[in-house]
Amino acid sequence: MKKYLLTPGPTPLPPEVRKAAARPIVHHRTPQFKEIFAEVNQGLKYLFQTKNDVFTFAASGTGAMEAAVVNLLSPGDKAIAVCGGKFGERWVEICESFGVEAVKIDVEWGKAVEPAEIKDVLSKHKDTKAVFTTLCETSTGAVCDIKAIGQIIKPTPAVLVVDAISALGAEDLKTDDWGVDCAVVGSQKGMMLPPGLSFISVSPKAYKLIEESKLPKYYFELKKAKKSLDKSDTVYTPAISLIVALGEALKLIKKEGLENIFKRHKMMASATRDALRALGFRLFSGTFCNVLTSAYVPEGIDSTKLVKLMRDKYGVSVASGQAQLKGKIIRIAHLGYIQPADIIKGISVLEQALAELGCKVESGKGVAAAKKVFQSTK
Amino acid sequence: MKKYLLTPGPTPLPPEVRKAAARPIVHHRTPQFKEIFAEVNQGLKYLFQTKNDVFTFAASGTGAMEAAVVNLLSPGDKAIAVCGGKFGERWVEICESFGVEAVKIDVEWGKAVEPAEIKDVLSKHKDTKAVFTTLCETSTGAVCDIKAIGQIIKPTPAVLVVDAISALGAEDLKTDDWGVDCAVVGSQKGMMLPPGLSFISVSPKAYKLIEESKLPKYYFELKKAKKSLDKSDTVYTPAISLIVALGEALKLIKKEGLENIFKRHKMMASATRDALRALGFRLFSGTFCNVLTSAYVPEGIDSTKLVKLMRDKYGVSVASGQAQLKGKIIRIAHLGYIQPADIIKGISVLEQALAELGCKVESGKGVAAAKKVFQSTK
Repeated sequence: MKKYLLTPGPTPLPPEVRKAAARPIVHHRTPQFKEIFAEVNQGLKYLFQTKNDVFTFAASGTGAMEAAVVNLLSPGDKAIAVCGGKFGERWVEICESFGVEAVKIDVEWGKAVEPAEIKDVLSKHKDTKAVFTTLCETSTGAVCDIKAIGQIIKPTPAVLVVDAISALGAEDLKTDDWGVDCAVVGSQKGMMLPPGLSFISVSPKAYKLIEESKLPKYYFELKKAKKSLDKSDTVYTPAISLIVALGEALKLIKKEGLENIFKRHKMMASATRDALRALGFRLFSGTFCNVLTSAYVPEGIDSTKLVKLMRDKYGVSVASGQAQLKGKIIRIAHLGYIQPADIIKGISVLEQALAELGCKVESGKGVAAAKKVFQSTK
Repeated sequence: MKKYLLTPGPTPLPPEVRKAAARPIVHHRTPQFKEIFAEVNQGLKYLFQTKNDVFTFAASGTGAMEAAVVNLLSPGDKAIAVCGGKFGERWVEICESFGVEAVKIDVEWGKAVEPAEIKDVLSKHKDTKAVFTTLCETSTGAVCDIKAIGQIIKPTPAVLVVDAISALGAEDLKTDDWGVDCAVVGSQKGMMLPPGLSFISVSPKAYKLIEESKLPKYYFELKKAKKSLDKSDTVYTPAISLIVALGEALKLIKKEGLENIFKRHKMMASATRDALRALGFRLFSGTFCNVLTSAYVPEGIDSTKLVKLMRDKYGVSVASGQAQLKGKIIRIAHLGYIQPADIIKGISVLEQALAELGCKVESGKGVAAAKKVFQSTK
């Protein structure tokens, strides 16, 4: 059965990327690899919209999150963590694992943090070293106003760290213009790669904290990594085949252009929202998210069953709810190598699965709503 | 130009592995992936010769080394580290980075540690929690007698940790029979995979230390990982495409059989040694190593130039010396998906490059010596 991934990571792989991942392996301590890596590093700057260094780890996104904490902070330091979902909570967990005091800003799941609240908490905790945020909370679909948050944090001594793991390449993130000191990203989302790579950008302000940081670290140490990066090299053996594939993905990204990519994502998000509304779903998040759309399933439907039916009978993978949202919501991703036709297919299968689960839906109503968006945008 | 990798990681990839790495991505939170991962975990036990759990990280081998240190130990703990090369030193660096006291056993580069010395140091440091060793020192080609070391450590409270990153699948390592508590391995060596995965096996004795460990950790935490592994799951997004490729590599390994694989490696090592001797090289390591052969280049030759010439003009990559051995030795790997014919090709190119660098060599003498071994072994 042909499979369609409409999940917020991993996302589907373009054929160019799959082909590149299968190339014979090239040794990493050679001019040949250094050339590839240097080009990749330039491409990453384009994608991150930054002039800062972008480091690549052989690790999942969580590894790069840990890198942010252990490289920026020292034992007993204070940090603010915005928690509006599973991934915001992860910042708190990492901080606490390493003896960093995390001041939590709890945000209702599905809502985005009010920038004013960050300002307020910062003014009460003037010794805050870092503010940890999430651009897109993949567990809910809420999107943070990083631009506004950046303006608040810029004049303070604190650095702004953004978990953009699922969002980069789908949501606009102007790393330099918005004052993002560290953006953390994973490969298996908007970057259209298999999982296994993660990234962190580092601003001059962040480098100052890195110089002072006393938390223990080795594999994720950035001071050492910086020396290698300056020579287009890595400290430890890099995930070569994934980096070669990344080179191809970055070529595709440059060719389409960031502006066009954001436009496509916005259009697919809009189409998905309209389709779900037409099918009687209530949108879960109050914010409009280009990465994924989350929505309460209609009354009487268990979203876990719905997701299973769509996947096992029709080959279409969407995500169910996590933690307290289990069984209640579905999350349809529209990022990376997902195109309008994939959304149509996904909505059509959703309609079919809903009907089979006894939900009254007018066949084609969701598809028509999505198509309308695609047609009117073009 | 056709390229041949005779380097001790990355090593060449079998076509089955390359094809698997290029498959459309499958989502990791599905029964489909769990089935693949469960089979992989069984295959890893075969390869590691263990009934213990084997954990898989999205990380290079150094990540799994860090996992061993941070999961087994607590701040101020004492550990013994055997240092006979660059990778032994790494154990010391990791210990010191995390506030663990590392008692160094310095071994002359190229030599293997005397098990009696470990016994001696252990008796002086009875509060030692862990002994860190290296099965094959990739920087020199020395091989440790892990079996003898295991017998010494077994009756003590300490655990035996073996960096088998480059050696597993080339050198015999009877994890359970020899009392290895943790074996640490990287994917890009004898496992015939791209870099990006690393592994650690954990014995019941090691689990006890893990329970008590107080070093800070998050990404590499094994207690959390154990709960996931028991359900054929991972805590964080795994490097899916590499794990799918690992499934194919493990099939090849099972098909050839560990005994045959070790026999093949031993034969290639023997052929390489004889060829190098015939060409006037002096072997560097006193131990016979199935992973790679290191040897001093003939008088007047700079090994860095030799390696460059072989790679850039003839497409054959071998390794030069690291650290104090830079320019002095070459290291020819014969592990993983390297076959006798690849060794013949490599030796032939070596002869040619030596001649071009002004070294008097009888053309074909090295090849003849290698062929003799292959013919007499079959």
